Amino acid sequence: MQDKMQDKNKTQVLTKARTGLEHLIKTAGKSLTVAGTSVARRDDPLKVTGKLKYGADYPDEGFLYGKILRSPHPHALIKSINTKKAKELEGVVAVLTAEDVPGRNGFGAIIPDQPVICGDKVRFIGDGVALVAAESEKIAHEALKLIEVDYEPLPALFDPRDAMAEGAPKIHESGNLLSDDKMVKGDVDAGFAEADVILERTYQVPFLEHAYLEPDTTMARLQPDGVMLVEGPMQAPFTTRRNVAPVLGIPINQVRVRQIHMGGGFGGKEDSPIDIGCRAAVLAWHTGRPVKISLEREEITIQTAKRHPMIMELKVGAKKDGTLTAFQGVIYDEQGAYASLGPKIPPAGGSHVHAMVMMPGPYEIPNVKVDAYLVYTNHPYGGAMRGFGAPQVHIAHEQMMDELAAELGISAVDIRRKNAFKLGSATATGQVLNQSVGLRETLEACAERFDWDRRLAECGWVDQAKTKRRGVGVAMGWYRTSIGTNGDGCGAAVHVHEDGSVLLYSGITEMGQGAFTVLPQICAEELGIEPGDVRIVQPDTDLVPESGPTVGSRSTTLMGNAIILAARQVKESLLDTASMMLMVPTERLEARGRKIYDRENPGKSLGFAAVAARTMASGKRMIGQGWWTPPPPSLDGHTGQGSPYHVYTYSTHMVQLVVDVETGEVALEDYVAAFDVGKAINPKALEGQIEGGVAMGLGYALMEEVVLDHGVTQNPSLQGYLIPTMLDVPDIQPLILEVPNEMGPYGAKGIGEMPNIPATPAILNAIAHASGGRVSRLPADPEKVFWAIREAGGPPQA
Amino acid sequence: MQDKMQDKNKTQVLTKARTGLEHLIKTAGKSLTVAGTSVARRDDPLKVTGKLKYGADYPDEGFLYGKILRSPHPHALIKSINTKKAKELEGVVAVLTAEDVPGRNGFGAIIPDQPVICGDKVRFIGDGVALVAAESEKIAHEALKLIEVDYEPLPALFDPRDAMAEGAPKIHESGNLLSDDKMVKGDVDAGFAEADVILERTYQVPFLEHAYLEPDTTMARLQPDGVMLVEGPMQAPFTTRRNVAPVLGIPINQVRVRQIHMGGGFGGKEDSPIDIGCRAAVLAWHTGRPVKISLEREEITIQTAKRHPMIMELKVGAKKDGTLTAFQGVIYDEQGAYASLGPKIPPAGGSHVHAMVMMPGPYEIPNVKVDAYLVYTNHPYGGAMRGFGAPQVHIAHEQMMDELAAELGISAVDIRRKNAFKLGSATATGQVLNQSVGLRETLEACAERFDWDRRLAECGWVDQAKTKRRGVGVAMGWYRTSIGTNGDGCGAAVHVHEDGSVLLYSGITEMGQGAFTVLPQICAEELGIEPGDVRIVQPDTDLVPESGPTVGSRSTTLMGNAIILAARQVKESLLDTASMMLMVPTERLEARGRKIYDRENPGKSLGFAAVAARTMASGKRMIGQGWWTPPPPSLDGHTGQGSPYHVYTYSTHMVQLVVDVETGEVALEDYVAAFDVGKAINPKALEGQIEGGVAMGLGYALMEEVVLDHGVTQNPSLQGYLIPTMLDVPDIQPLILEVPNEMGPYGAKGIGEMPNIPATPAILNAIAHASGGRVSRLPADPEKVFWAIREAGGPPQA
Repeated sequence: MQDKMQDKNKTQVLTKARTGLEHLIKTAGKSLTVAGTSVARRDDPLKVTGKLKYGADYPDEGFLYGKILRSPHPHALIKSINTKKAKELEGVVAVLTAEDVPGRNGFGAIIPDQPVICGDKVRFIGDGVALVAAESEKIAHEALKLIEVDYEPLPALFDPRDAMAEGAPKIHESGNLLSDDKMVKGDVDAGFAEADVILERTYQVPFLEHAYLEPDTTMARLQPDGVMLVEGPMQAPFTTRRNVAPVLGIPINQVRVRQIHMGGGFGGKEDSPIDIGCRAAVLAWHTGRPVKISLEREEITIQTAKRHPMIMELKVGAKKDGTLTAFQGVIYDEQGAYASLGPKIPPAGGSHVHAMVMMPGPYEIPNVKVDAYLVYTNHPYGGAMRGFGAPQVHIAHEQMMDELAAELGISAVDIRRKNAFKLGSATATGQVLNQSVGLRETLEACAERFDWDRRLAECGWVDQAKTKRRGVGVAMGWYRTSIGTNGDGCGAAVHVHEDGSVLLYSGITEMGQGAFTVLPQICAEELGIEPGDVRIVQPDTDLVPESGPTVGSRSTTLMGNAIILAARQVKESLLDTASMMLMVPTERLEARGRKIYDRENPGKSLGFAAVAARTMASGKRMIGQGWWTPPPPSLDGHTGQGSPYHVYTYSTHMVQLVVDVETGEVALEDYVAAFDVGKAINPKALEGQIEGGVAMGLGYALMEEVVLDHGVTQNPSLQGYLIPTMLDVPDIQPLILEVPNEMGPYGAKGIGEMPNIPATPAILNAIAHASGGRVSRLPADPEKVFWAIREAGGPPQA
Repeated sequence: MQDKMQDKNKTQVLTKARTGLEHLIKTAGKSLTVAGTSVARRDDPLKVTGKLKYGADYPDEGFLYGKILRSPHPHALIKSINTKKAKELEGVVAVLTAEDVPGRNGFGAIIPDQPVICGDKVRFIGDGVALVAAESEKIAHEALKLIEVDYEPLPALFDPRDAMAEGAPKIHESGNLLSDDKMVKGDVDAGFAEADVILERTYQVPFLEHAYLEPDTTMARLQPDGVMLVEGPMQAPFTTRRNVAPVLGIPINQVRVRQIHMGGGFGGKEDSPIDIGCRAAVLAWHTGRPVKISLEREEITIQTAKRHPMIMELKVGAKKDGTLTAFQGVIYDEQGAYASLGPKIPPAGGSHVHAMVMMPGPYEIPNVKVDAYLVYTNHPYGGAMRGFGAPQVHIAHEQMMDELAAELGISAVDIRRKNAFKLGSATATGQVLNQSVGLRETLEACAERFDWDRRLAECGWVDQAKTKRRGVGVAMGWYRTSIGTNGDGCGAAVHVHEDGSVLLYSGITEMGQGAFTVLPQICAEELGIEPGDVRIVQPDTDLVPESGPTVGSRSTTLMGNAIILAARQVKESLLDTASMMLMVPTERLEARGRKIYDRENPGKSLGFAAVAARTMASGKRMIGQGWWTPPPPSLDGHTGQGSPYHVYTYSTHMVQLVVDVETGEVALEDYVAAFDVGKAINPKALEGQIEGGVAMGLGYALMEEVVLDHGVTQNPSLQGYLIPTMLDVPDIQPLILEVPNEMGPYGAKGIGEMPNIPATPAILNAIAHASGGRVSRLPADPEKVFWAIREAGGPPQA
């Protein structure tokens, strides 16, 4: 069996990867012409010339402007609301309170626990207490000031451990513990008993803001036929529709949600459009007029979902040679005021479950136990953000691995070499990785390209004055493709026209990640035409098949497969026609380069457009439809054992940096990031994703934090919330390895979220290596680095 | 074989029809719950309350207004055009001439022979010579006046026979004879030799205007991604797209055509949206701004397609007992300046071919010969109009049948009884009618309901002064379902949502005929839910599968079948889920009344929505796709023999009226219209179609005519172009018979165009019966009736 697996893993790829020929590797059995090439991204010209209109650029079409009155209390009862003065203000068309919500007064990506308008109580500073629609934003602002709310403050909870304590005030009726999950493999006590070394650590990470460039906007219009049209930049138009309908008390088919161009999402535009979508729809419903809500930057920071903060307690046991024997972890995962995308969707959906599954890292460990608690507090709420629970636990396990290596006196690379997943490994959930496991390959390729041994040897003081010290760091990562819920399917349709041009229907949205370039490539590859022949339509719930959300690094793989199935269905018609026109059996026909030809006599050929025209004229099907669902996930509710995700992407990052031990400042010098992506459909676009991801991981490591004081956000604007600039980001060398995924289109696996995950711990490990200071509570800003060096007794002197 | 056919024809239906139980007849083998019921039309409330917005009601969104400079000459060369002054006018943004058309300077539903902007010559009064886009309609009008065109008039042709003459000036380079078709069955000379009586007649019909209430509008916008969006009320969005793309010189997938609400079409909005769609798109392309063209009523009459005028020469031979032995016909079918929907699309598409095939009427005639000429002239052009060539030839053959009956001394009903198609009859194209032939049944049912014999006996002078005389008339008709072209297919998609609500995707447009009520009924019937659970989307070429045009009485049958196929595909998923939930094999499950239950134990049931939710959660397909094409049509190019259309609808009308023999005025008193529709999906909506159709046929008979003098339209407004009012229309008794069509949804056949066809000749026959005056050149307005009575030597004196 191992042999067969080995074959599946196609390790010959590695050999080529080592020789730097990664991009030349072709998926076995199929010579590709379009997939695998670096087609230019389609939206770039419009974006760089400023021609592309975002929601905020839309012209006023008689809109009313919606604004939300926000709670100034983190936890309080609402005793009364007086909207009279606000309603009397000239230009105010509606002031709505909880009783004005026509249907269910609750929304949420998983659980509808967030009121559209709070009626009885508020749960965080920023909670919506009333909605205003006015002729201008200025009037709406004025109206907010005229609404009088009488609150009765309640004790507020800001630490998940406090919120779990017995007798703690209940934030929601159902209690504060939102999810309580367990993962148990082997016998963790026995594992620790076998260990030569046991280490215990606690790491802590704060709320992060996505800081997408484009502020959230939504436009809602009640159409004459009673259909509510909601437009905005969204990662999950179908989830928005699924919420707007019950909030208005109408069936789902009476709501139409249309995606418009999006200027960044990073997970944040999965649920913020639900929030303002429902609110704008309620205002449009009451006023009968189109309503636009555009959030200001400060509102985005205060109101929308964040990356979950976590307190992570880890205990690891290893033998002298570095072999891991046991891992035990506890996650206090702070949900904040509302459930958003935190809680479990059985069997393995939700960021909380994902964090738990990922927590022990991509390592073979026979005995594992993890307890994960997801807890409501009176802070803003955690939701989806690139990596979805994985970056946090990688920050923990990857630092722990370095600390363990140091304790054992072996190198950071060697301890990973010893324990990293390989083909046939069993994960902490007991899932046997039986194909496409390129983790070790990324380690070796990264080490070779980075020249780890040489650089490691050359580290130390940079200057004679001994103020700056150079170090290197490594981190590994793994990430799922797909989201671990039942029914995680994607639908696509492919329409071929009689001139050979094609419309591609997919519900996957473009947020800058390149889906609108890569998905047409897959369609063109399958039909044997050029990517420019395929136009992909903007997702619109009236228009495209249900595709689920654009999250979970699922787009290329799941939608790619659906597109292939759809294209093949219509190709059947085309080949059938070509077969009659050429008098060649369909099995001998090949479609490539806008031609359909006899494989045994390539001169015998027809133009794709000519075949399309004839197929159309003969009344054959010109539309293909595809639907693809990954193998059903499993995860036992009691033991956390099963196969929660059908395939994983792997990565190793290495970084070199210099720490100023006097100021705590960190300057990155060099960076190599290696990935096993299965198959790079568009290598250039992939490299762009890698570069952006590393920058994002860097921000997490060094500067990003939503600073909260008694529930009050201290840095709501981008003046106070720091993100990396071009000057902070080093030269990044991406390294793409292809260990084909037998369930992916041409072997591809998801890659959208992987790039930032190992970046943060790699940088933290390098800081520790350079300066001796290990920051266990992020971000590692200069002050924290400075004190960490002091706590470690000063920098290494060697 | 005859026995088997008899069975297929389900003649038991007739028995019931005769007893007045028509509406109770169920399609064998399936007890229907939704199809067959008179669900209220969905668009009615919005229409009667004025809430529904038509194109002209759309708010100004920064539009430029487009106007067309029209030729004042029916035929002329364009020597030069000077647009300088017009361009200099404040508020004018573009003045375009032929060289400004970016791609192909020609459009057309079948042949692109009509210039978007005429370059070298003009071919009718109204031809477009320049296009203007300006900030207001007023400015655009001013600009038109400032354009200087130097014409060199050419001899113009206004009669198709003149245009066919040798040496006639060529209107198009290819010559004036656009189509020359023949239909030859048996030996017509031998047939006439057998005849006891031979009659020869010529009938002539004028151009008709559709006179839809809503004027044509189109809005074109070039979107940032380069896609040209064209919106307007249309019967054929796909045909518009197919024309706009080459006119702009871009692929079809770069054009998006979106249907908006339509206030009547009657065939006219099949090609006028192509015309103004292309022109608005060219203006939008040049200006980069949204452009709206709204036609004024006079422009509609002058510019858009009309019902073809025809000169029809007929010769018929019969035996003494009324048995027809031979039929010979010649059609001079006047196309006017451009091809529009006139010419043949092999094998049997185009109004010209349709007229030829229908010309001998729904009668068994062993020997037939028809020559049909379609000829360009310098008049406005003929296009599609309800009946598409059939009303004209019915006016001829149904009057001829009455004249023949009179000649033979037998009754108008008996001569039809003798010759009418029955199961197994062969048509003039040699097609054997092997199922669903209810023509004779409509005759008998109509005669019974009308009480023909009694009324016939009671006719005669109404008043003692002998100024008014009562008469009765009968006419029969047949009409195809589908359009006789290869590839006449329809695509549909059915999306079931997790709350059980459904979106239905179809490219069939609603123009008042009821498609948006009937198509959801079919979908609901198939899924076992309520019609209100199904929302049908507005056709949009980016959104719905190619469905062909909304013409040819094809919607219910072709699209109905596609919807059934699509619904069954998604129903498979639902039944599969229900089977697992109920532990009952799928074969035993029935879906009805929003429940899915065990047929053998109906108490064991689940709600449709619950099953939908579970199906969704398990990742199964929630989208079905259907594609249906009728059996391939055939019609030999030399002999006109074959099976051009796959099934026919049949009808008999009877009317009683009074003619004032002193003034020529006609007053209708009573009307019965019987139809074999296969299956009435929505009887009430069908009755509405019948009533509207009879009114339309009445207008054709008594008042409608586009009056042309040397190419100049004399009555371009609705003040001069008369259509019937409520006061002109008698009480109409619709009679619906159902002889199931084995290829139709629940047995249905097309019915949209049938109702007006026999109405015109039935009225003309009744006028002749009442007054003795037969009007062979329409309309039978008071003056023509007056003179016809005089020509016949005065009214009958009995």
